[in-house]
Amino acid sequence: MRNSVFTFGGGTADGDGDMKEVLGGKGAGLAEMSRAGLPVPPGFTIATHVCNTYFDAGKRLPDAVQTEVARALAKLEKEMDQKLGDAKNPLLLSVRSGAKFSMPGMMNTILNLGLNDVTTAGLAKRSGNERFAYDCYRRFIQMFGEVALEIEMEKYDHIFDARKAKAKVKTDSDLTAEDLKAIIIDYKKLVQKETKKPFPEDPREQLNLSVGAVFGSWWNPKAAYYRKMEKIPDEIGTAANVQAMVFGNLGETSGTGVCFTRDPGNGVKDLYGEFLMNAQGEDVVAGIRTPIPIAELDAILPDAFDELKEVRQKLEDHFRDMQDFEFTIQEKKVYLLYTRNGRRTGPAAVRIAVEMVQENLISTDEALLRVSPIQISQHLSPTLSASSLATLPKLGNGISGSPGAAVGRLAFSSESAIEYSLSGPVILVRKEVTPDDIHGMDVSKGVVTTVGGKSSHASMMARGMGRPCVVGMGQLHIDERENDLWVDTRRGALRLRQGDWVSLDGTTGAVFAGAAKTVEADVSSGFVAQLLKWADERSLVKVRADADLPRDAKIARQFGAQGIGLCRTEFMFFEFDRLRILMELLLATDGVARQSALRKILPCQRSDFVGIFTAMDGYPVAIRLLDPLLNDLLPKREKLMVDVALLPYASLRKKKEIAADYYIPVRELKKSLPELLRRVETLSTANPKLGHRGCRFGVCYPEVTKAQARAIFEAAVLVSKRGVDVHPQVLIPMVDSVEEFENQKRIVVGVADEVLERASKKIRYSVGAAIETPRAALTADTLAKSAEFFAFGPGHLTQLTMGLSSDDYTRFLRDYEEAGIFKSDPFAVLDQEGVGKLMKIAIESSRGIRPSIGIGAFGSHCAEPGSLAFLQQIGVHYVSCSPFSVPMARLASAQSAIMAERARS
Amino acid sequence: MRNSVFTFGGGTADGDGDMKEVLGGKGAGLAEMSRAGLPVPPGFTIATHVCNTYFDAGKRLPDAVQTEVARALAKLEKEMDQKLGDAKNPLLLSVRSGAKFSMPGMMNTILNLGLNDVTTAGLAKRSGNERFAYDCYRRFIQMFGEVALEIEMEKYDHIFDARKAKAKVKTDSDLTAEDLKAIIIDYKKLVQKETKKPFPEDPREQLNLSVGAVFGSWWNPKAAYYRKMEKIPDEIGTAANVQAMVFGNLGETSGTGVCFTRDPGNGVKDLYGEFLMNAQGEDVVAGIRTPIPIAELDAILPDAFDELKEVRQKLEDHFRDMQDFEFTIQEKKVYLLYTRNGRRTGPAAVRIAVEMVQENLISTDEALLRVSPIQISQHLSPTLSASSLATLPKLGNGISGSPGAAVGRLAFSSESAIEYSLSGPVILVRKEVTPDDIHGMDVSKGVVTTVGGKSSHASMMARGMGRPCVVGMGQLHIDERENDLWVDTRRGALRLRQGDWVSLDGTTGAVFAGAAKTVEADVSSGFVAQLLKWADERSLVKVRADADLPRDAKIARQFGAQGIGLCRTEFMFFEFDRLRILMELLLATDGVARQSALRKILPCQRSDFVGIFTAMDGYPVAIRLLDPLLNDLLPKREKLMVDVALLPYASLRKKKEIAADYYIPVRELKKSLPELLRRVETLSTANPKLGHRGCRFGVCYPEVTKAQARAIFEAAVLVSKRGVDVHPQVLIPMVDSVEEFENQKRIVVGVADEVLERASKKIRYSVGAAIETPRAALTADTLAKSAEFFAFGPGHLTQLTMGLSSDDYTRFLRDYEEAGIFKSDPFAVLDQEGVGKLMKIAIESSRGIRPSIGIGAFGSHCAEPGSLAFLQQIGVHYVSCSPFSVPMARLASAQSAIMAERARS
Repeated sequence: MRNSVFTFGGGTADGDGDMKEVLGGKGAGLAEMSRAGLPVPPGFTIATHVCNTYFDAGKRLPDAVQTEVARALAKLEKEMDQKLGDAKNPLLLSVRSGAKFSMPGMMNTILNLGLNDVTTAGLAKRSGNERFAYDCYRRFIQMFGEVALEIEMEKYDHIFDARKAKAKVKTDSDLTAEDLKAIIIDYKKLVQKETKKPFPEDPREQLNLSVGAVFGSWWNPKAAYYRKMEKIPDEIGTAANVQAMVFGNLGETSGTGVCFTRDPGNGVKDLYGEFLMNAQGEDVVAGIRTPIPIAELDAILPDAFDELKEVRQKLEDHFRDMQDFEFTIQEKKVYLLYTRNGRRTGPAAVRIAVEMVQENLISTDEALLRVSPIQISQHLSPTLSASSLATLPKLGNGISGSPGAAVGRLAFSSESAIEYSLSGPVILVRKEVTPDDIHGMDVSKGVVTTVGGKSSHASMMARGMGRPCVVGMGQLHIDERENDLWVDTRRGALRLRQGDWVSLDGTTGAVFAGAAKTVEADVSSGFVAQLLKWADERSLVKVRADADLPRDAKIARQFGAQGIGLCRTEFMFFEFDRLRILMELLLATDGVARQSALRKILPCQRSDFVGIFTAMDGYPVAIRLLDPLLNDLLPKREKLMVDVALLPYASLRKKKEIAADYYIPVRELKKSLPELLRRVETLSTANPKLGHRGCRFGVCYPEVTKAQARAIFEAAVLVSKRGVDVHPQVLIPMVDSVEEFENQKRIVVGVADEVLERASKKIRYSVGAAIETPRAALTADTLAKSAEFFAFGPGHLTQLTMGLSSDDYTRFLRDYEEAGIFKSDPFAVLDQEGVGKLMKIAIESSRGIRPSIGIGAFGSHCAEPGSLAFLQQIGVHYVSCSPFSVPMARLASAQSAIMAERARS
Repeated sequence: MRNSVFTFGGGTADGDGDMKEVLGGKGAGLAEMSRAGLPVPPGFTIATHVCNTYFDAGKRLPDAVQTEVARALAKLEKEMDQKLGDAKNPLLLSVRSGAKFSMPGMMNTILNLGLNDVTTAGLAKRSGNERFAYDCYRRFIQMFGEVALEIEMEKYDHIFDARKAKAKVKTDSDLTAEDLKAIIIDYKKLVQKETKKPFPEDPREQLNLSVGAVFGSWWNPKAAYYRKMEKIPDEIGTAANVQAMVFGNLGETSGTGVCFTRDPGNGVKDLYGEFLMNAQGEDVVAGIRTPIPIAELDAILPDAFDELKEVRQKLEDHFRDMQDFEFTIQEKKVYLLYTRNGRRTGPAAVRIAVEMVQENLISTDEALLRVSPIQISQHLSPTLSASSLATLPKLGNGISGSPGAAVGRLAFSSESAIEYSLSGPVILVRKEVTPDDIHGMDVSKGVVTTVGGKSSHASMMARGMGRPCVVGMGQLHIDERENDLWVDTRRGALRLRQGDWVSLDGTTGAVFAGAAKTVEADVSSGFVAQLLKWADERSLVKVRADADLPRDAKIARQFGAQGIGLCRTEFMFFEFDRLRILMELLLATDGVARQSALRKILPCQRSDFVGIFTAMDGYPVAIRLLDPLLNDLLPKREKLMVDVALLPYASLRKKKEIAADYYIPVRELKKSLPELLRRVETLSTANPKLGHRGCRFGVCYPEVTKAQARAIFEAAVLVSKRGVDVHPQVLIPMVDSVEEFENQKRIVVGVADEVLERASKKIRYSVGAAIETPRAALTADTLAKSAEFFAFGPGHLTQLTMGLSSDDYTRFLRDYEEAGIFKSDPFAVLDQEGVGKLMKIAIESSRGIRPSIGIGAFGSHCAEPGSLAFLQQIGVHYVSCSPFSVPMARLASAQSAIMAERARS
């Protein structure tokens, strides 16, 4: 039988830091710290697997486990030289949750366990501090009642506040021991009333119920939601850590705090955190009292501060990562209550990883694995434009809880945030944020709280979720009932209502009324540049960008794209003047009209290609020929039908109502509405995604392919003469068969040869096939005889392989996720079993025909780390994603390479 | 160097009957007949490959071939003891085309070659028949002029008719030798005028030009169109057969005719054909004179008739198939000019094949291969309903040219037929049909001619194309300029205009004015039943039917379906009253409304299943659960948009205009138009084929799956109690993943167990997956863990694999066929490389998991012989096609099995 209880303390432990699976993160950290000689109050951990057993047994600890607990408790009593329930020298305990993965604040904690009327008297006598003892007791009854007996917190608050009013005191600490005793009597009455049983005075019963309550909190709604969001499996369960109490509330030489071994906001290497004197742990993280920066401890308790600095160094040397730890100072002596790898912002993660390499703490591979691709993306979060801020009223500065800028509409509750988020960006503004607000934060672009500090739940959750956050904005006065807030600004008092726009800078802590403009970030310098340089050295899959315009190509290079993997020529026309020309082309009913449109298109495209080639000097540029999704590009058929039907009544209506809001004014197309409708009806397809698109258009209208090839190669000649190193790759869209491909390739090669010969230029180019249909993938071996490279479109392949339109699938996406049919959104995470298998078949079979064939992929799947790892595994040479995703993909690519190497060895 | 010229005659030959590739069908037949001692005028065949050489050399016979021809000619002169161009005893020749595959009437023939002013005089003297000689001469000049010199026939006719008028004679045979001489002088003037050269008097030049002209006719438009239609490759070319002339026009003991060794219309074993006395071959097949049935020859020339009967027996014994042969009687002596396997109607093909087995001429395998699946389908062509004919005016009886019944609108030209065919069925009515009318016949449901007999082009082409045809309807007087016809009927004179309806019975030769009703045929008795019995014994792939209603299931059984492979539950509702209920279900916005609709649906479905199970007693019935193509089933969104937009103007319009033609009256749905529009907009998808359909509907609305399962199993219990042997197979539609499948299977099994348990009935059933998406095929191994059988939908798989909507692809189908990208229509002929490969992957991988898994396929591909052969090859156990295709598929399946066995051995 496996052990269920593991003791720690006194420089030794049953477990160690690698046993997170069994002990949970907190338990493993305590064991490891104990072994490392760090000052940990002794205790024991009840293993995670007991959590399931507990539920299987009908919320009961099995007898065998109870026996182990009793044995561990006896050992602890001996170690502490105290006894649970002892009238003179009672052992007091904390019971804390702790799963394999950190879920801060999501589960329950009980402190001061072991107190009852008898032991409290003993504690009072022994500590010589009656008020302290009764404060501990009332806290315990309250916490135990809420957590183990499920009595609402508000009912305790009501008693507490009533007493404060009666005693005419303002702060909690002004209450006397007698006040507290009175409160305790009322609390016990409350327990009797709510549970129909007296408060359990027996400390062993308290312990049993508390351990059960901690296990039980695994399934409370906020924890379940958090796991779903963070993709933490439900079945791993939490451990329960039972530990001897130390007291930060034993007077003015006691205190408690939370520290990071480096700044979790920016990564600067220094002890970072905050504390409260004469307080218990929960007071700091709950954000009820605003804590003091840790540096100020030096002035209050210099020895303790030095000890903490030493602890910082020991922790980092031992754990080789930035640590987040809780400490308690009991009468000047420092105790560590937990340590764990600290959560950090993206910029901090990058800086810490890079500096730890420079400090020889970790290798570059470890550094690359320490930063998540999502964290890299925080480097790309925009900042507020200084010029646009000049005109906005500043509401003031709070504490930077999580960096980055956000603009959105005010919401004062999670419910409102969810509602507002349906129609645009939202900023959640709350007095304080509790883990219950996780839904609201999830849908918000940024968060502001009026209380709390850097280690409040608000800050930690925001950093974890990558949301900019400002905390401690006490100058905002929120009236939740009225759904507004007022604030004194330099320009006078300002009242904002729910739904008004605000802008916040999480990096500086500034908040403004109104919607500021934002400025994009870049990654070309500093720590992130260093990390991504290491990443590029390590990657097996190169990262290119999807970019349709010169402007996008420039951004792509700034973000380190090594070429363009997809330039969609149809997107080049998504500007007013150009769209009209494209429309002319699509609506043309004969070759003459088509040629006339093409003559206008050619110079537009050529100049765009010149810009793109120039931006991508030295790198390949894959240009996909026109793939016209006719139903999207043409005026809407339904709208035309309605307008044509209404024509006889036109005189009865305002003239502007008809044909006003086609994006191309109808008269510009020189067609009457009925004419236009007829043409659109001819071109419309019942299933546009399966329609007359891709290279099917070029096959029917070879002049369109010809004109595009001309634009590409004339542009290539032009930039080449200016000394640009140009590598055009022509991509034939949505190919189904080698016959189709060769039909189009012949045209492209014909034009290319003619243009290059006339210019007497030698430019290397290649012609490849976009693998966007299952048939193309299935016949890739045949295609490879003619195609010089392949570019997979996993998005479109997903649609066809699954028979699922990306326009329509949201109709049942939620039902599918809830039924467990979709493990993830197939348009976000590549379906490896189906779509991936198809790609694998294609790559393997085509390599048999043309071993050197270049293989790429484009679209949103490419920056998703799991999908990218799969693409690497099946032999894709490059991926192409949106310019802003390029840095993420560069890191993800390096991580894939490292993980694959580790898996092999 | 390969030989180019092959001689035959005198009981021997260079080639033989197996050399069709080299000699063409006619040449091989002549060689084989010569070897078999049949009376063939001697001659030689210039091989098919010379046809290409001729074109490659710029329409010139290569010198080497000319040398071979000269050598063969010399041999022929010796054999005949005549010389080409000899003034006293001239050798006269025919030059005929003859490709590997029979292309009757599509290419050119030249007769009487060798005549000029000198040899004609010699022939006159030698034959003692001056008129005969000059008739031959003028025929030759005319034929040669038309074929080799490309002078329009009409110009000759003009000269000929002018002379007839001048001579005041009515028929050609009343013209005297002097008249003919005068015509010859005018003919030669015509040649001089049109070609700027005199008529070539040199017989060798005549021969050279004629051979060239025969080769040249390979590329005339009608021949090229015929090849395209019949899928005969362009590159195989035609041979040219040069043969000593025999004369059927040498007087009243001479004649010519065409015979079949069995009746090509119904297969009866007797000499069948017709002849003309004192005529040349072309007169019979051209349909200008109406020929005499062959039986009547017995009275005219009894010895020749006996000889022909002997020939019939020899030909069948030798060729072991029904032969179609041309003969000439020259002064009582019989000569055979060609023989070939005779074209025949479907019913004839079946009867001949079956009877030849019974006569021990061929094996059952050979019999099965002798009949094409298309011919079987002619057994299914309907007949005219006797009761409906009672009210229609009968236009009269003609000759049965090709059996079967047809109803359609009159068209007097191929052009009109093509035009009318766009809007409905057409009957082509012509004086005579020439091979130039092939387009018109192709689009017509039936053909009527006023002249011609059973072996006229009209009859032969109609039989080949499977079109009912009545010929020799001399009582119809067509006025092509007025586009009408008149006819004396029992009820008086009747005038019909183009576009009027007529009905014809090709089996009896009767034609009626008006549209008769038709009666479906069956295949459950007679020769076809025997053949299909042999087929079923030989088949590896069983044939089931796609049938949605009890009525279809009954037909399917009559046609020999061994179960139902696809019962589409959504099609059960395509009747007015039921559609309303389905609409209620689809438009339901909550569970209550959905349940209410389902309560109405359950009894409908149950009663249908009862009917289907009963019809299929002892056979499996695969029922596919609802696959709602919402956009097809719901009122059209565009129409609703227009009507809602027009609502404010409703008073200005006739009330009926609005909402009149929704197939369900809107008020029946108890929703206002705007409400209905809102609901339809919610349900509409941008790409319906990739939308919320298939089992996705059942996943979101499990009550729908439940209700259908209940209907199935309650019906099964009901019929089982009545003693029906019921085998329900529940097919989950459009499955993408095993998770989806199991979600639905769980519901079905739950309901089945409950229903069966309550009824205390044990009924074996299975639950399978419809493989309609590439993903399902790619993950078939996983699916096979849970699915008990698979049913492929190759039509839907084709759409998704190729990214091609069957609604929209016709937009570019023609361009694709012309560009050579589509070898055939992918929705008619299975794409083996792409879709087929996917199916193969699915079958192979799933067999690894569940070796016994049942594999079926449904839809239109399944009856296409090539596709069926492929399905057999990859291991499909059964196919399912429309009831009317079942007999075709049964035969095709047997043929596939035989061919596969032959390929293995």
